[in-house]
Amino acid sequence: MYRSHTCGELKLADAGKVVTLAGWAARIRTMGGMAFIDIRDRYGITQLAFNEGYDAGILEQASQIGREFVIQVTGKVAERESKNPQIPTGDVEVIVTEFKILNPAKTPPFLIENETDGGDDLRMQYRYLDLRREVVRANMVLRHKMAQEVRRYLSDSDFIEVETPVLIKSTPEGARDFVVPSRLNPGQFYALPQSPQTFKQLLMVSGFDRYFQIVKCFRDEDLRADRQPEFTQIDCEMSFVEREDILHVFEGLTRHLFQKVKGIDLPEVPMMSYADAMQFYGCDKPDLRFDMRFADLNDMAKGKGFGVFDNSEAVIGICAPGAASYTRKQLDELTDFVKRPQIGATGLIYCRVEADGTFKSSVDKFFDQNALSGWAAACGANPGDLILVLAGPLNKVRKQMNELRLEMGTRLGLRDPFNYKPLWVIDFPLLEQDEESGRWHAMHHPFTSPLPEDIHLMQSDPGAVRANAYDLVINGVEVGGGSIRIHNRSLQERMFELLGFTPEQARAQFGFLMDAFEYGAPPHGGIAFGFDRLCSLFGGSETIRDYIAFPKNNAGRDVMIDAPSALDQEQLDELSVSVKQR
Amino acid sequence: MYRSHTCGELKLADAGKVVTLAGWAARIRTMGGMAFIDIRDRYGITQLAFNEGYDAGILEQASQIGREFVIQVTGKVAERESKNPQIPTGDVEVIVTEFKILNPAKTPPFLIENETDGGDDLRMQYRYLDLRREVVRANMVLRHKMAQEVRRYLSDSDFIEVETPVLIKSTPEGARDFVVPSRLNPGQFYALPQSPQTFKQLLMVSGFDRYFQIVKCFRDEDLRADRQPEFTQIDCEMSFVEREDILHVFEGLTRHLFQKVKGIDLPEVPMMSYADAMQFYGCDKPDLRFDMRFADLNDMAKGKGFGVFDNSEAVIGICAPGAASYTRKQLDELTDFVKRPQIGATGLIYCRVEADGTFKSSVDKFFDQNALSGWAAACGANPGDLILVLAGPLNKVRKQMNELRLEMGTRLGLRDPFNYKPLWVIDFPLLEQDEESGRWHAMHHPFTSPLPEDIHLMQSDPGAVRANAYDLVINGVEVGGGSIRIHNRSLQERMFELLGFTPEQARAQFGFLMDAFEYGAPPHGGIAFGFDRLCSLFGGSETIRDYIAFPKNNAGRDVMIDAPSALDQEQLDELSVSVKQR
Repeated sequence: MYRSHTCGELKLADAGKVVTLAGWAARIRTMGGMAFIDIRDRYGITQLAFNEGYDAGILEQASQIGREFVIQVTGKVAERESKNPQIPTGDVEVIVTEFKILNPAKTPPFLIENETDGGDDLRMQYRYLDLRREVVRANMVLRHKMAQEVRRYLSDSDFIEVETPVLIKSTPEGARDFVVPSRLNPGQFYALPQSPQTFKQLLMVSGFDRYFQIVKCFRDEDLRADRQPEFTQIDCEMSFVEREDILHVFEGLTRHLFQKVKGIDLPEVPMMSYADAMQFYGCDKPDLRFDMRFADLNDMAKGKGFGVFDNSEAVIGICAPGAASYTRKQLDELTDFVKRPQIGATGLIYCRVEADGTFKSSVDKFFDQNALSGWAAACGANPGDLILVLAGPLNKVRKQMNELRLEMGTRLGLRDPFNYKPLWVIDFPLLEQDEESGRWHAMHHPFTSPLPEDIHLMQSDPGAVRANAYDLVINGVEVGGGSIRIHNRSLQERMFELLGFTPEQARAQFGFLMDAFEYGAPPHGGIAFGFDRLCSLFGGSETIRDYIAFPKNNAGRDVMIDAPSALDQEQLDELSVSVKQR
Repeated sequence: MYRSHTCGELKLADAGKVVTLAGWAARIRTMGGMAFIDIRDRYGITQLAFNEGYDAGILEQASQIGREFVIQVTGKVAERESKNPQIPTGDVEVIVTEFKILNPAKTPPFLIENETDGGDDLRMQYRYLDLRREVVRANMVLRHKMAQEVRRYLSDSDFIEVETPVLIKSTPEGARDFVVPSRLNPGQFYALPQSPQTFKQLLMVSGFDRYFQIVKCFRDEDLRADRQPEFTQIDCEMSFVEREDILHVFEGLTRHLFQKVKGIDLPEVPMMSYADAMQFYGCDKPDLRFDMRFADLNDMAKGKGFGVFDNSEAVIGICAPGAASYTRKQLDELTDFVKRPQIGATGLIYCRVEADGTFKSSVDKFFDQNALSGWAAACGANPGDLILVLAGPLNKVRKQMNELRLEMGTRLGLRDPFNYKPLWVIDFPLLEQDEESGRWHAMHHPFTSPLPEDIHLMQSDPGAVRANAYDLVINGVEVGGGSIRIHNRSLQERMFELLGFTPEQARAQFGFLMDAFEYGAPPHGGIAFGFDRLCSLFGGSETIRDYIAFPKNNAGRDVMIDAPSALDQEQLDELSVSVKQR
């Protein structure tokens, strides 16, 4: 036993006790005849006092060490002269009588403090030191707590955690698979799962009734900022349920997590159709921390001689509350914002609602006070507010206005990361059409059931079929998504056919699932939460990497261990593969 | 909502209620004017009654269905005339008034009952039906419970669950890695972890203090019966600990599991050195459910003119209690058993201790009653017991006698799978020497610390150095193993050197870890439990496959989904690899 207590637990009541602590030297202050060292471990920090009056030899030793040395000390707990109310152990210090260096430390390449001087690359290379910083470790502790509470809630709700295999079969649909050559089956490959989708459905066929798993999934995508090749899902499936049953259970889970982990009582989660989300917020994951719903200004904006509006499919306005005072410069910034190539608007129309109720717009030439008051009514704008208007092809304007709305939310301070506004988005389209090839793709995945009332449209108007699918959106972030599944072989076959599979392809890739549907498959559905994302949301951060202990960089590399890397020829030979020279 | 109740919860107190159930038709009995169907779900079985007196139409419908159809029924709960005390719902039945087939079912290829007629291959191909059998599902429920209790205990003991990466770097030491070609880094490969060993050590350097994870690990080994390419570990690590601290915590975990999952109070776990285990049981994982300790008969067996003994390095005896009555035929069977090529003994000597205390041995010509009474004393044999003796080179005889001892334990009914006898085996050798190459290998792994008092022998007598390592053995099964780790760069370098690494190789593969040791690495150690094995032990089975939802067969194949499989050329091209023709 290297210690009698951790560095976070000594209190005034312990004064007089002889204790042994072990940890890292966090701060070292020496002064004539005395030294103070803050010793740190995961549990806290305790002040150590060295005094030449007690033991000059130990003071001498202590003076030799540097930051981050691992030390072990024994001494008597004493009340501090100048207390530190910032930390739980701040009333006491330990007067050291025995001192031992357990391991010396080189000077770290960056400061092991919450505000560090280390850049991203350096911190990733020395991730084990980065993780030593309290802010980073706190993220991992949060993640740990969330995982335990997820399991507690679901276990208490009769869900069974089942581990599904990691070495499975490649299915070239959807994102790219990571694959694993099989040495024992030369020329053949396993794939790593993009999700345990088919396995959890088989568990429903097996009668498991309620399944969950916190599970690693893998997607070999071209990496974008903050996307990881391996990520973690809370994966769930239930039998004999309809959509409402699933929403009820997982609203319960979400509320439980907020209550247990953050002490927040989450409000009831409202529902919004995909169509409404697109119409009123221009995206399928609206941030409801603030309003600024889109107002359709088509009727009142067109036919007044303003060509931009007249020639546009859609004219959409939003009301930025209290922003009538925006300066010319601020408005120009907004115009530049929407004209950036990533957003691509051609211009921005504004209309100030002045304090006296009059209007001042950038299109006064075409729209009189009466017309503008119509805009204000449509947008819900009051004196002091600013109306912002974009025009163009409907889908483009929606996207652009979504970006502008979020930007305005940010500028107006309406997106407090610790104010949580959840939403179920439902009734997604079942299919999306690839513009170039004309091929239909499953918006969710090929196992999603259409809404029963839309099944008859599958041949005649595939694009109009709605899926029995749902997403949980919190603060504009898609936290989870799922669907009621197809549990009937012929419907599944029709779905594959719609997606362009030949019967042979469907059978080769998913025959086992369709076979299973013929042996007594119950109605079932489920959901999967992006666990990394959920953790970052709870932590109030937008970067999932901060919530992953050993993340990869944007090139998919672990720069700390230097992976991936080349293999020996011998290893390749054993696997019956060779590397192609380019 | 497809049901108001599950099939496992209706009681006499529910009589008169109108309920809706959904599940599988487990048994169907029709008789003139009536039918009974047992409806089954995960929670139980409820009897459904169909009576033409109530509703002839429904009776007609119900008569059409077959086993494993998925049905939904509504009806009134009624007291049964002939109760079934075997099941919790046995007092009631549901008089069905509404009936719906949710999904028909083809006749399953084998019986969905605990005693099935399905062979291994068929059950694996239709694993989703095999999992529908109560005995198989119960194994998964047991596994679920164990996982939750592991997490509860460790979380409550301040352990933090941290997910370590699955896509890591290949290190050609030890077993073979599964590898994953990186599309974004052509010619380079990730490896799947054989264990999170280096990452958990880095977490200790990070100050996490107590880490755990229930985690998938991967080894590309030639598969033997009951070995899986992917398996699950309970992986743990602690800082500022000595061996006893770790044994204490994980003895606590083990006792907690037995208490919570099986209601068994496990006794204190004794410790035994590797040397003693080899001397007294001939193996490093002795089954302590029965005694039969090896007795060294060298002194009393040699020099009596019996050549077999005189020319042997070791003569070892065991006492099989109550087996003096073994017939000639039984003794011949035992002789055949030890002479099998897998065991390889040249013969078996026996000595009966008769009821009157006299001895009858197969070597009476060389050993008189007095000599044989010496054997009996050494083996602890009493009247009615049988002494069995093997002779030969020490290591071989130990192995052979270990097999014979286990065989006798089985034959004498001393190996009750639900009688649990745990043991810590400690003080393993640090290194083993490859007989052919003369190279030293780490017996545990290269990160295991030698016992401090043996470090001075590392250069002069590597084979004599003991490791600060420990295994938890229960009933002859190695359930877990771990060690105190090296936390000092120079000692780690010496270890790699002993194992034949050049400094460059050591640096290329494990430089990040050795670097980490220089930035304030605390003393630390840990353990990993084989979770599949632990579950099978709790379940009273020797087959880990029974405790894995979707296992691979002995050729590493998943025969249900038919993986691994060939890839498209396009997919290979993207990955910059090609398959080598043999």
